[in-house]
Amino acid sequence: MTAMVREEERVDALHRKGYQIIQNPSRFCFGMDAVLLSDWAVVHKGDQVVDLGTGTGIIPILLEAKSPPARFYGLEIQEEMADMARRSVELNQLEPAIEILHGDLCETERFFPAHSVDVVTCNPPYMKAPAGLKNRDASVTASRHEICCTFADVARAASRLLRSKGRFYLVHRPARLVQIFEELRREKLEPKRLRLVHPFRDREPSMVLVEAVREAGEELRTAPPLIIYERPGQYTREIYEIYGYPYPGEETE
Amino acid sequence: MTAMVREEERVDALHRKGYQIIQNPSRFCFGMDAVLLSDWAVVHKGDQVVDLGTGTGIIPILLEAKSPPARFYGLEIQEEMADMARRSVELNQLEPAIEILHGDLCETERFFPAHSVDVVTCNPPYMKAPAGLKNRDASVTASRHEICCTFADVARAASRLLRSKGRFYLVHRPARLVQIFEELRREKLEPKRLRLVHPFRDREPSMVLVEAVREAGEELRTAPPLIIYERPGQYTREIYEIYGYPYPGEETE
Repeated sequence: MTAMVREEERVDALHRKGYQIIQNPSRFCFGMDAVLLSDWAVVHKGDQVVDLGTGTGIIPILLEAKSPPARFYGLEIQEEMADMARRSVELNQLEPAIEILHGDLCETERFFPAHSVDVVTCNPPYMKAPAGLKNRDASVTASRHEICCTFADVARAASRLLRSKGRFYLVHRPARLVQIFEELRREKLEPKRLRLVHPFRDREPSMVLVEAVREAGEELRTAPPLIIYERPGQYTREIYEIYGYPYPGEETE
Repeated sequence: MTAMVREEERVDALHRKGYQIIQNPSRFCFGMDAVLLSDWAVVHKGDQVVDLGTGTGIIPILLEAKSPPARFYGLEIQEEMADMARRSVELNQLEPAIEILHGDLCETERFFPAHSVDVVTCNPPYMKAPAGLKNRDASVTASRHEICCTFADVARAASRLLRSKGRFYLVHRPARLVQIFEELRREKLEPKRLRLVHPFRDREPSMVLVEAVREAGEELRTAPPLIIYERPGQYTREIYEIYGYPYPGEETE
């Protein structure tokens, strides 16, 4: 087992079915956004699910843990990340339910026929590419900034993959919501559900969760806000539930 | 004073500077959305402010009450409503600060030069026109449904009126947020601020407040949610403050 884990890497417990994940602290590690997105996405039995820019593979692994039997793919452009994600899948013995593919989300035709997929997920880079930055090798930078792909690329890839009425789940920054809606509609992905994530009840949201449906009619439903902290240092009950941790004081043996 | 108020009409107190408003219970009466919109809109000293589809005139009257000296116009297509709003302005001796204009928001050029206004407000009809309904005389129906104007008409009128960086404040249904953003952007009105209004903390929002700025750059700020009820029958403190009522138990002499 330890042969799977390279120097500089570590193994973290996921509190879901005993699953673990390999991460490299010097590269991009998954955050709460990936966990919230996995909770937000709905996978039905037998669905084909593609996670775009899967990174560590956290989203297909968490989705597999909570969903009925389905087929999950994680597409990752950085070869080293794809390799690490593949080893996490092996570590949890999740083959063949999850398959990690090394490739560019702008070239999904290499892996999937058009409009053949039921669900697409994506936790994309949130920030626009810094002016002048051209180095595609900077792994962390590429995970956070639109260097390998823009949001328009992501929306185009999701739309190409999804069948009619297929579902696209994403997490992003609320500051970019107007553009997100515009790009989604341009690709026939109609935003149907929205949830804002606020660090505290009385603070501005820091994340937004969106469900868009390919070729659906207009009507957006907005969920009640998701609040992260009850008070400083104390997560809300909903966050504990999403992470699969017992709420303090309610631990069972 | 009573000569101003017609049969079937009533006079309601507004709890702002002692202002009152004339309403006809058999026609459209203002709701909480108009009060929240007046609270949401920001008027600076000397601004020219136009309220599109002013109805009873509630929005310019509440805006005048809370703002530094400015010039307010309310445009109303229904002659009878415009007349009633004008009588409310007289009742509060708000001339010349507020002027009620009888006209169509699709023809603002009859009243204002293009791009001459600092602020536009609108509490538009929320619902699409019912199929087959053609009767423009049904006053209540026209206040609730897009019969006299669509949201695209409203956005076009606001854009034509506003100077560059002028502000458009509106309230609408969250279900239509995607279309609202799209129509606003089409008219160069960039959504810059958003606030969702939830009846209860853990319920879906029933209204959305938007501020769009003409020819502004992309970046949306989302305010913390506005909650209407603390519990059934008990408004939150913020709602009491917006209405100008003392919070129960904190009445001063």
